[in-house]
Amino acid sequence: MEEENCVFCKIVKGELPCHKLAEEEVAIAFLDINPCSPGHALVIPKKHYERLEDMPREEVEKLIGLAHEVAKAIVKAVNADGFNLGINNGRAAGQEIMHVHFNIIPRFQGDGGRPIQSLVKVEVKESLEEVAKKIREAWSKPNL
Amino acid sequence: MEEENCVFCKIVKGELPCHKLAEEEVAIAFLDINPCSPGHALVIPKKHYERLEDMPREEVEKLIGLAHEVAKAIVKAVNADGFNLGINNGRAAGQEIMHVHFNIIPRFQGDGGRPIQSLVKVEVKESLEEVAKKIREAWSKPNL
Repeated sequence: MEEENCVFCKIVKGELPCHKLAEEEVAIAFLDINPCSPGHALVIPKKHYERLEDMPREEVEKLIGLAHEVAKAIVKAVNADGFNLGINNGRAAGQEIMHVHFNIIPRFQGDGGRPIQSLVKVEVKESLEEVAKKIREAWSKPNL
Repeated sequence: MEEENCVFCKIVKGELPCHKLAEEEVAIAFLDINPCSPGHALVIPKKHYERLEDMPREEVEKLIGLAHEVAKAIVKAVNADGFNLGINNGRAAGQEIMHVHFNIIPRFQGDGGRPIQSLVKVEVKESLEEVAKKIREAWSKPNL
């Protein structure tokens, strides 16, 4: 998706309205218009990045720093018992708007919901040691 | 849960084994022993914090900085099409081990899984504007 057609870029630029919660240099937070629960918010980088891999580490850190603070405010405001904070990164992971966004989804005792581990179950054919070895090799490459 | 009985604290101290992927000053990453998909990893702070709210912002940022880099290595190593990165924060959100941990769950085209928005559906009774106002008020308090 091009930046000029991106709804989140339009929200950042003020060309589309949002229920803004907080703003910092790198990121803004606003309410999801199709909330999964009261206080469901999105935290996005102001710059257009399609996927988390495209962002520099420093901007990811600042994005999550804001998410952390906003999540605390949401918990107090809606009297939540907890929350899920997470991202669908890539279409295979359920991403629909191709501009990085973290969801803060407040959770309430007995809300009937599930943990993040419920999202998918794919059989692991290799041993954990083999998987770990491949990841360590990828991690050690300078061009990551 | 007390720190001395915490399995993740034992992993950090080397008293329990793990398939370690990476380590930095603040955080370590290792494979989940009950993987949802190949390469499913956990990223945790070395210090014992039960919930995200208990952590200083700087440590949350460094934790996610490591998660970001490890996720990139995992995607390359297992040839994933995407991933979910997220936390169950608090028992109501599905947290079982009471030491902060982010899940990196690799996703694959056609894996039959769901997005994070599928975790829960709780009716929102107030208007979004009312919810946003309460959150902004909580956010503006200095003792957050």
